[in-house]
Amino acid sequence: MRRQSKRDKMDRLDKALDSLREGRPIFIYDADGREEETDIVFASENVSHDEVRFMRKNGGGLICTTMADDVAERIGLPFLVDVFKTAQAVHPVLRNSLPDTLPYDTKSAFSLTFNHRKCYTGITDIDRALTIAEFGKLVRSVQEKKCENPLKAFTKAFRVPGHVFLLRTSKELLKDRNGHTELSTAMCLMAKLPPTATICEMMGDDGKALTKPAARKFAESQGFIFLEGHEVQEAWDKWSG
Amino acid sequence: MRRQSKRDKMDRLDKALDSLREGRPIFIYDADGREEETDIVFASENVSHDEVRFMRKNGGGLICTTMADDVAERIGLPFLVDVFKTAQAVHPVLRNSLPDTLPYDTKSAFSLTFNHRKCYTGITDIDRALTIAEFGKLVRSVQEKKCENPLKAFTKAFRVPGHVFLLRTSKELLKDRNGHTELSTAMCLMAKLPPTATICEMMGDDGKALTKPAARKFAESQGFIFLEGHEVQEAWDKWSG
Repeated sequence: MRRQSKRDKMDRLDKALDSLREGRPIFIYDADGREEETDIVFASENVSHDEVRFMRKNGGGLICTTMADDVAERIGLPFLVDVFKTAQAVHPVLRNSLPDTLPYDTKSAFSLTFNHRKCYTGITDIDRALTIAEFGKLVRSVQEKKCENPLKAFTKAFRVPGHVFLLRTSKELLKDRNGHTELSTAMCLMAKLPPTATICEMMGDDGKALTKPAARKFAESQGFIFLEGHEVQEAWDKWSG
Repeated sequence: MRRQSKRDKMDRLDKALDSLREGRPIFIYDADGREEETDIVFASENVSHDEVRFMRKNGGGLICTTMADDVAERIGLPFLVDVFKTAQAVHPVLRNSLPDTLPYDTKSAFSLTFNHRKCYTGITDIDRALTIAEFGKLVRSVQEKKCENPLKAFTKAFRVPGHVFLLRTSKELLKDRNGHTELSTAMCLMAKLPPTATICEMMGDDGKALTKPAARKFAESQGFIFLEGHEVQEAWDKWSG
C-alpha cells in the first residue's frame, strides 16, 4: 500500500466535511485498543427516515445523537449517570450499579433518551428522524444564540424518556476523551455545522463489531469517506489550536 | 379466507409457546388502533448473539427486555419515569418533559438501561446477548425464590446505564395494559418460562412500521408463528382466570 501523502490526508478530511454538510454519511473508526468500532456518522440536521434506515440496516447498533457539552449545558441536559446519582436515595438499585470505570474509557457519554412530541410510537424511521432533525435545528438556534430559553424550547418540543439516545461530549472535547461522541461532534464543528451528529455502531455477522478492514471496505465501495480517530484528532488540533 | 376454527387457534397458541421454549421467535402484532406494530419476541434466557442479529436485521427497532412487575419490584427496578421524577428538583429539564399521556397509551414501560458487567462496549451482538441471557437467569432464580437478595444479585452482575432497555409490565399485566411488554411477558408465563421476553419492533422500508400483512407474511414464510394481541389476551384470560 502506498504511503499517504499530507495532501491526500487533507483531501480526505475536506471531503468528509463536505459529506457531512451535504447529508452524506462518513465512517469513523475510533482507535486500536479502544472500542475498535466504526460508527456511521451523519450531521443531525440532515437526518431523514432514509438515513435512519441506512444506519439500522448497515450499522445495527444504537442510533444516538450527540451534542457538544456547552450546548447540553445551556439546554440543561445532564449525563444520565448524574441523574441516577440524584435518585440513589430513593432507588437503591442505582447505588451499586453505576460504573466507576468502563473497560475502554473512564466515563459513559449517555444523557437522556427522548422523542419529539409529534412522534407516534417514537421508534419508526420517520419518528426517529423527526426527533433527530428537530434536535439539530434546536442545537443550531442555541449555538447561534437565537434561542432565548433553550430549556423551555427543549421541553416544549420533546418528551423524555424516548427512543433516541442523547450523548453528551466531554467538556474539552478531544482534549478529554476520544470516543465517537467527541470525534463526530468535532467533525460537525470543523464543518461549521451545529455541534450534533447522529451515529450508529457497525456490527459484524459474527457477533462482534465489524472489523476495521470490513468497515473501510464497505464505506469506500459506496464512495464514502472512512476516517480513523487519529486523523480527526490531528485536524482538530490544527483547527482549534 | 376460511374462518379459523377454535382448534386451529389453540394449535397456533400452543405452537407459539413451544417456539418460545425452544428458542425460536414468535411475532406479535398488538392491535389495530394501538401502536399497530409487530414485535419479534424471544424468551430472554434463550437469546444468543444469533437472536440479537436476527432482531436487528429483521426488526430494526430497539432491542428491549421485559420483566413482570412483581419481579421488577423484588429486584428494585423502577420505571424510568419514576427515577426522573425523583431527580426533578436537581435537573429542571425533567420537570416539563415527562409524558402525561402517550398517543397510544397512558404510560411508557421504560425502566433502566443496562449491560452485564462482563460486556466490553455493550453494543455488540455478543455483549447484548450476554446481558439479556444472564438477566433471564436472574429472573428465573428470583421467580423460583432461589435468590436470597435479588437487588444485590442484580447490581453484582449488571451495570447501569447500558445498551439494553428494560421494560416493566403494568401491575396486573393484560388487565391494565395491552402493549408488547405485557403481551410477550404473558406468553412467557403461559409457556412456564421466567417472565422476561426480549422484543424488537419490525420496521418497513418506507419509514413506517412494517404493515401487519407484511409482518405476517415474513413470519409465516419462515415457519414462525404470528399472533395478534387479542389471541394472546383470550388465551391469557382462560389461563389466568
